[in-house]
Amino acid sequence: MAALHHDRLTALRAEVQRLGLDGFVVPRADEHQGEYIPPCSERLSWLTGFTGSAGFAAVLAERAAVFTDGRYTLQVRAEVDGADYLCRHQTDQPLTAWLAEALPAGGRIGYDPWLHTTTWVEKTGAELKRHGLALVAVAENPLDAIWTDRPEPPAAPLTVQPLAFAGRTAAEKRAEIAAALQKAGAAATVLTQPESVAWLLNIRGGDVPRTPLALCFAILHADEGVELFIDRRKLTPAIAAHLSGVAVLAPSDFFAALDRLGERKDRVRVNPDSAASTVIARLYDAGAEIERAADPTALPRARKTAEELEGARAAHLRDGVAMARFLHWLAGAMAGGVTELAAAAKLEGFRRQGPLFRDLSFDTISGAGPNGAIVHYRVGPETDRRLEPGTLYLVDSGAQYQDGTTDVTRTIALGTPTSEMRERFTLVLKGHIALARARFPRGTNGSQLDVLARQFLWQAGLDYDHGTGHGVGSYLSVHEGPQRISKVPSRAGLEPGMILSNEPGCYIEGAYGIRIENLMAVRDSAIKPMLEFETLTLVPIDRALIDPALLGAADSDWLDAYHRRVRAAVAPLLDPAAAAWLEAATRPLQDG
Amino acid sequence: MAALHHDRLTALRAEVQRLGLDGFVVPRADEHQGEYIPPCSERLSWLTGFTGSAGFAAVLAERAAVFTDGRYTLQVRAEVDGADYLCRHQTDQPLTAWLAEALPAGGRIGYDPWLHTTTWVEKTGAELKRHGLALVAVAENPLDAIWTDRPEPPAAPLTVQPLAFAGRTAAEKRAEIAAALQKAGAAATVLTQPESVAWLLNIRGGDVPRTPLALCFAILHADEGVELFIDRRKLTPAIAAHLSGVAVLAPSDFFAALDRLGERKDRVRVNPDSAASTVIARLYDAGAEIERAADPTALPRARKTAEELEGARAAHLRDGVAMARFLHWLAGAMAGGVTELAAAAKLEGFRRQGPLFRDLSFDTISGAGPNGAIVHYRVGPETDRRLEPGTLYLVDSGAQYQDGTTDVTRTIALGTPTSEMRERFTLVLKGHIALARARFPRGTNGSQLDVLARQFLWQAGLDYDHGTGHGVGSYLSVHEGPQRISKVPSRAGLEPGMILSNEPGCYIEGAYGIRIENLMAVRDSAIKPMLEFETLTLVPIDRALIDPALLGAADSDWLDAYHRRVRAAVAPLLDPAAAAWLEAATRPLQDG
Repeated sequence: MAALHHDRLTALRAEVQRLGLDGFVVPRADEHQGEYIPPCSERLSWLTGFTGSAGFAAVLAERAAVFTDGRYTLQVRAEVDGADYLCRHQTDQPLTAWLAEALPAGGRIGYDPWLHTTTWVEKTGAELKRHGLALVAVAENPLDAIWTDRPEPPAAPLTVQPLAFAGRTAAEKRAEIAAALQKAGAAATVLTQPESVAWLLNIRGGDVPRTPLALCFAILHADEGVELFIDRRKLTPAIAAHLSGVAVLAPSDFFAALDRLGERKDRVRVNPDSAASTVIARLYDAGAEIERAADPTALPRARKTAEELEGARAAHLRDGVAMARFLHWLAGAMAGGVTELAAAAKLEGFRRQGPLFRDLSFDTISGAGPNGAIVHYRVGPETDRRLEPGTLYLVDSGAQYQDGTTDVTRTIALGTPTSEMRERFTLVLKGHIALARARFPRGTNGSQLDVLARQFLWQAGLDYDHGTGHGVGSYLSVHEGPQRISKVPSRAGLEPGMILSNEPGCYIEGAYGIRIENLMAVRDSAIKPMLEFETLTLVPIDRALIDPALLGAADSDWLDAYHRRVRAAVAPLLDPAAAAWLEAATRPLQDG
Repeated sequence: MAALHHDRLTALRAEVQRLGLDGFVVPRADEHQGEYIPPCSERLSWLTGFTGSAGFAAVLAERAAVFTDGRYTLQVRAEVDGADYLCRHQTDQPLTAWLAEALPAGGRIGYDPWLHTTTWVEKTGAELKRHGLALVAVAENPLDAIWTDRPEPPAAPLTVQPLAFAGRTAAEKRAEIAAALQKAGAAATVLTQPESVAWLLNIRGGDVPRTPLALCFAILHADEGVELFIDRRKLTPAIAAHLSGVAVLAPSDFFAALDRLGERKDRVRVNPDSAASTVIARLYDAGAEIERAADPTALPRARKTAEELEGARAAHLRDGVAMARFLHWLAGAMAGGVTELAAAAKLEGFRRQGPLFRDLSFDTISGAGPNGAIVHYRVGPETDRRLEPGTLYLVDSGAQYQDGTTDVTRTIALGTPTSEMRERFTLVLKGHIALARARFPRGTNGSQLDVLARQFLWQAGLDYDHGTGHGVGSYLSVHEGPQRISKVPSRAGLEPGMILSNEPGCYIEGAYGIRIENLMAVRDSAIKPMLEFETLTLVPIDRALIDPALLGAADSDWLDAYHRRVRAAVAPLLDPAAAAWLEAATRPLQDG
């Protein structure tokens, strides 16, 4: 493989030189800046061998480097040939500093304006300019010129998201967003993220893994009109009927439509943090007035309808059944020896048996012992470990059901845990419970609540280096904004209907990882005028890892009530053996 | 008084018209944007009668209005003649909207560029422009032209803040800030806030109430040179010797010095949020390159030295003695009848007896019954209430000692409190304790910790409409940035040595107010790598208001340990009767 990737690098260098450039940036990104991208957009992996979900390469005539974040520092060294590429940490050793060091003033760095946001281009361009370097948009991506066996773009058929699950018609959503545009004095908004279009039009697709998205663009006008730019091969007769009020156009028509907005001198709302820079550049060149603002569908999409919440509850019940069957199986299978891969496959099997199951919502994180301490661990044949007694097993998994998206993490004691494991697990649990029990006034954002989940770990000198909670879509992305619970400042107040994860953790490198993750929906509290969380996930929390002496009365009450809920909902749907296991797994704490 | 203020309004209108303006803005501000201003700067009060600490008037030919925040909506109506002035809420009914409604396009609104920050001018000017109105700086304040008996500017003598209290020489501080300027490529910074100059040069003054400030400006150059612009009458021989390395110039020389920076095309750091707009305008006109950034002395000033922390501890012990004597007196005086004013005077008397006492640090808030629910209550002869059995008494007070600034709030049960009062007091106390006990990693800011103090109130559907904690200076302003603990997002990470208040509360309008306030210093925790708080205030918390059933074990342990500390430190400094009272007031919770 090293020779293959070396040859590709050599070919790309020739193309870059032919374009009169001194370097070129290859991001792990598609035209929609999505978390999952189709095979035809896996340029970074094709070029370098690096398969992580974030990062980019910079290729110069004599040097090249792959930049990743802290999650992938080990993986990138394993996958990329060190003779060809330096491996750099994108925050600590940023691109611009590396380029400034590598290139003399006057150097020109190319980028594909379909694959970077305006925010990235402006920031990077300004930094390079300070070093006398120029960031130059290319008309054609030089990598595509040499990638001769590049896969075709995906064209999975669209499906309708039924009103029974969505809760609002596309017409209602279009009217709401159009009214917001009108009020803000905007004539239109350009939607570049497929999840925005999916939500707006109540459609789903299958163009990328793990998320039911159809890659497409749309323009929503303030008169409620919609132009949808999508490969016609994705349309079925049923979808065509569903989209009867929508102007369906080819992706190749997209620029002409942007030009029309410009010709009318329209005020157009676009999000510079997510739109490909070429979109804003095209609008600008065409004469449009650009309103840089958040995607107007993001907040309405985050506020789930009553039907979406009902769907989420049903999906979580189904997911709870699969998880209970899996945990019951695991308890019995240990004697025979289980590996991370086998466990993940078994769990997927249980999930697939549930009605409305469509896919996993992300690759299962199945981490035994020290692998559990790797926050974004992806199990593969090379790293696959046996689940050993005396260790912890961390499994973070979820599914895409047509009525809801799930995401749950449980940490399981294999054999007898040490008192240190129990103490730390209990601190994580106390944080999880404090967040789950929180009440808070309207306007409170997730940055304000984050400390509730960390406080007990902080007391013990511990912390975790990831957010506490991310937004979750409704049969859409498992990571969704704007809501989140994190140390990072957030302006997004939590609102009824938003779904968030609650996932504090504790990671001891080389030894074990602990994470407890439930999804929760924000709802009005009976204690006025407060908001509170409704926990959606229905999976027992391993009692063997709890030190009851460290729990307060409110903690124990919450846990016992949660386990009663899990048992009452899930046990009737299990076979007798699994039900008996669940009965024991959810008994009150005081029963030892 | 109404006729007097009416005549002043009429005279101002004539002046404004003479200047060719359609209106004029009169803020409650001086040239330094300080919280306390000298009598010669009390233009708003002189014009309108409104004596609150924040607000402004806008005077048009036919209409006028006073704008205040929520604290002063009642007071402004009581003090200002409704026939002359509308009373408006500055956030809900903003100035620009009112002007846009009152004036036709082309209208010109004057302002004194010494009394508004650049940030205010730019924001207000941009908003008015959208309505076709112009914001126009005046060369001479038209109000000053009619204020014939305006007081002289203050000229209180400067004092040296001894090294034993400050902990660092002015030369060390100048070197540190100059190095920071050099590193940032700035040639100088203009210090427009007297507390910055006071800290930098280890000087104090007496030009405004409650804060030991000398009104002045300074320029610190990257070569460590300082130009100090100050009325020479404030200098004593001792101060002149202390300032031997400083170029002392007259305030009238200030603009010439700004012009010199401009002539050299110097890069000059100024804070647009605090500098008078005329300062930045002058620099700009003179040709300087403006670096808009935080005051470079703010963070070093917030990180107290070991000597300042030792001084704070000594000042708080003295303050604790005064508070214990006061609370002991109050317990005995109730039978004879006490009013809010009498109580505040008694407390001030006890404080004045302490060594190094220089002044109160703010006007005492002495609120009985419903007056305690007014967060910024200022007692006066008209509102003075008797302290009645069956009610709560809230006293928020502090002192300027030469070695430290104090600020403490206690809520006292008069007679037997209701169970509702006890429950709510206990919720406030639990929040206070949760914040006082917090451990947190470096980089954590006060917005992240704020919820710790609110969580128990939120659980009960309650909240308080003010920040949880403000920074406190060292024999300087009782409100100091950048550190704070608040719902408002903050970027200022808490650092060892910072002093903050911890003051959750609960206010039942028309009934009572509860607040518990201690000052705390940030310090390194023995639990690495965390930070934690050291509580500085040494005053008992009223046990009669605590419902022990609502406290967790950690709460009770904290309170008992705190009370042991208070007793051990303060009791030896009291007469036997007060010591006996303190003994009882600080006995363990389980002793009933």
